[in-house]
Amino acid sequence: MIKTMEQITTIAEMRIHIKEAKRQGQRIGIVPTMGFLHEGHISLVKAAREICDLVVMSIFVNPLQFGPNEDFERYPRNIERDTELASEAGVDLLFTPDVSEMYPRPILTTVSVANVTAPLCGASRPGHFDGVATVVTKLFQIVQPDYAFFGQKDAQQVAVITQMVADLSMPIQIVPCPIIREADGLAMSSRNVYLSPEERQQALVLSASLRQANEWLDEGITLGEIKERVVQKINEMPLAKIDYVEVLGFPDLEPIEKEAAGQGIIIALAVYFGKTRLIDNLITQIR
Amino acid sequence: MIKTMEQITTIAEMRIHIKEAKRQGQRIGIVPTMGFLHEGHISLVKAAREICDLVVMSIFVNPLQFGPNEDFERYPRNIERDTELASEAGVDLLFTPDVSEMYPRPILTTVSVANVTAPLCGASRPGHFDGVATVVTKLFQIVQPDYAFFGQKDAQQVAVITQMVADLSMPIQIVPCPIIREADGLAMSSRNVYLSPEERQQALVLSASLRQANEWLDEGITLGEIKERVVQKINEMPLAKIDYVEVLGFPDLEPIEKEAAGQGIIIALAVYFGKTRLIDNLITQIR
Repeated sequence: MIKTMEQITTIAEMRIHIKEAKRQGQRIGIVPTMGFLHEGHISLVKAAREICDLVVMSIFVNPLQFGPNEDFERYPRNIERDTELASEAGVDLLFTPDVSEMYPRPILTTVSVANVTAPLCGASRPGHFDGVATVVTKLFQIVQPDYAFFGQKDAQQVAVITQMVADLSMPIQIVPCPIIREADGLAMSSRNVYLSPEERQQALVLSASLRQANEWLDEGITLGEIKERVVQKINEMPLAKIDYVEVLGFPDLEPIEKEAAGQGIIIALAVYFGKTRLIDNLITQIR
Repeated sequence: MIKTMEQITTIAEMRIHIKEAKRQGQRIGIVPTMGFLHEGHISLVKAAREICDLVVMSIFVNPLQFGPNEDFERYPRNIERDTELASEAGVDLLFTPDVSEMYPRPILTTVSVANVTAPLCGASRPGHFDGVATVVTKLFQIVQPDYAFFGQKDAQQVAVITQMVADLSMPIQIVPCPIIREADGLAMSSRNVYLSPEERQQALVLSASLRQANEWLDEGITLGEIKERVVQKINEMPLAKIDYVEVLGFPDLEPIEKEAAGQGIIIALAVYFGKTRLIDNLITQIR
């Protein structure tokens, strides 16, 4: 039997599908995205396909999580191509509400998470994670998933959502999935399309410096020294402008007080190339 | 068949019951309370009993919604008596988690609602409605109710929860239930037990002044004048200290720009008698 994907644009219609799936005892998985799909998103669908009976993908460019000077308006969109890719990947229900369906009037309710939102992108993008936590909570209420799949490229997002789900006792298992990279190492991102050929070439410094950092960890170089070397390496690229380079404990995202073997860490980068802000990270441990 | 009430103290145990109820297609209702039950709470159970298959009552004195100088520690508790009353009223599952079950570590996630939380108790009790919205969201995630029952004595709480449920697309119907009063008019409240006999007597001015306000509305007295008369009437009681007397639009809780027949209004009062803060309200419309 070939299952065909259904595209759904309203919350009311989604509720009908979810109610029926729940009645049948199906395990529901959600892959929340902002569309302009790439292999990273597809890998999330594959992970969902393996453990869920019903795979829902949402495509919603959420205005709440963009700052006033960010790229909400020009964020890349291609719903026809996304529909094809989602269907091929094995999505059952593609949820594509427009902004007026999700926010028919200004939303007065905010879900916010303290501490894990303080460093990294939370510091660079005030309000961003409030917007993420709020829209993800809303999507969770609409789809009522048993599992939710997120890419580790947005490692802080995973940390925020995991904290939120635990704090609010949401009956949902968060499944973090590995970063998917281009053949040359660049982490997949919908925003890569913004890059000029020259910027695209120089952006390889992100993944390259993380690979090197991993080797430096093997050599027993201290975290402070590694951070300095990564900064230096990125700054060798004339088009690169560092937003942050940080080494923090993982998964708590707290500063590391004392370096000890086995301690989980994240080396996280955010770097501008022109107007385009790219992020990448390495989650590992001290040897 | 006599159904016996089950008392549940852990989230994990509650999830098992809820999963089974969902599998059976039962309509689930929740009556969230802080315990020390009175007829107001019982009326919520009765309303739930009428439209739900499974009635869950939670009893949890939620520290998040008390300010540092408020009565969290001395809030009245009597779980033995509550258990009996809940069982008699027809509760199926009595959820009585302790603080360490609900908040095993400091909770980092906050659900907050703007605008409707600004006036009235929101102004007098900073952070109160954040605590309410957060714990109610958590209870909703644990119990996954189809219906939730709240008393209109806490009219602003009903407005906050209704707004939150709409904003976050929670699949829950909020059912507001009328204020239940003692024979002499005093609105039922767990906090009435704090009152000395003298305070108890003078506290009748709350319901009495609301009854009078209703008559003044019939007579076409303006809202501004009604508010002044209510203030005056309450101030005649030597033990009464007004926190607020407000007339606002209902259900939006916005100031009324222009008085017009049919306009929904709430006349809301908060008054201290000694350390005890009582609230009462009248929801009606301009004639």
